[in-house]
Amino acid sequence: MGEAATARRSRITPEREAELYRAVLDLVREVGYDALTMDAVAARTRSSKATLYRQWGGKAELVVRAMRNQKPGGIADIDTGSLRGDLHAIVAREDDCSMEQNAALMRALAMAVHMNDDLRQAFKELMVEPEVEEFRRIVRRAVDRGEVRPDNPAPDYMVHMLVGAFATRTLIDDLPPTREFLVSYIDAVVLPALGVPTH
Amino acid sequence: MGEAATARRSRITPEREAELYRAVLDLVREVGYDALTMDAVAARTRSSKATLYRQWGGKAELVVRAMRNQKPGGIADIDTGSLRGDLHAIVAREDDCSMEQNAALMRALAMAVHMNDDLRQAFKELMVEPEVEEFRRIVRRAVDRGEVRPDNPAPDYMVHMLVGAFATRTLIDDLPPTREFLVSYIDAVVLPALGVPTH
Repeated sequence: MGEAATARRSRITPEREAELYRAVLDLVREVGYDALTMDAVAARTRSSKATLYRQWGGKAELVVRAMRNQKPGGIADIDTGSLRGDLHAIVAREDDCSMEQNAALMRALAMAVHMNDDLRQAFKELMVEPEVEEFRRIVRRAVDRGEVRPDNPAPDYMVHMLVGAFATRTLIDDLPPTREFLVSYIDAVVLPALGVPTH
Repeated sequence: MGEAATARRSRITPEREAELYRAVLDLVREVGYDALTMDAVAARTRSSKATLYRQWGGKAELVVRAMRNQKPGGIADIDTGSLRGDLHAIVAREDDCSMEQNAALMRALAMAVHMNDDLRQAFKELMVEPEVEEFRRIVRRAVDRGEVRPDNPAPDYMVHMLVGAFATRTLIDDLPPTREFLVSYIDAVVLPALGVPTH
């Protein structure tokens, strides 16, 4: 994103921009990335297509900007004193509605991120890497406290375990991922795999 | 699928039908379900669009039939005498190329199965339920042998653990799911969660 594009976009207010990005992500969740059209975005946001193209260039850039805009602000470092406490606190931070929206966004973008480098980069940067980094920090502290053995191989798979269960919940059970589901999965799978007793 | 449609389709040879289904699934993996057009299927399979519509009715039915046709034949009941042996044997049954193809198919259909009841039904029946049933059988025997405690809650999450890691591998690591990855994940996560020592 160059200076010129930023300057061009700055003509609309931040509130209007945030509203537009919310509408874009709603549309992506509803119809999927492939079926999303600039016509639909224009209609939903009561913008002209010419404005959308002038300000964002195209669909990929618009969706990437929308994802960046919706990114939760600086995540406070969770540190409850136990691994179980930390993992439960991570889950508690998000409500069920927002979890369902994230799962729907993952489904809607699963194929597109494999076809579009800009989308993949944004997805990795905004949705994968912060999770990887946060779990790494939390597990490192658990190792330092002696809760997890330093040679336990499961920490390499924290994100596979958790994002995997999160992403496949609806497909497997016809139920959305919820805090209750994730807490139960953490106690049944994640903590035992890490060698941490749950009772 | 009524008798009439079956009779109509029976005009082409089973070999030609299998070839056509393979081409359909290749196309789904390449472009995704939404972007798949009957024009593209006609071009790739050197069929006329009229024939495709006459014989399959439409895109959803064609993809569902293709999935059913590609379903691996009767899965021999794996029974190696240990849970670790059984899980490794399940992984060994599929080569890396076929795993990558299945992962690509999951990505390509992730959104579509949520929008299309026929697709969802086929996906559940062909890709989810056989896995659930097979893992259930294998874990039941492990419980009978005393390898897994009857009150261990992790067996309820066998498919979430395994399909989750399988489905998110590429997104998280930019690497396809392979036998090596899954065996390592089984030893690091699945068996410890089930309380089974891996060494």
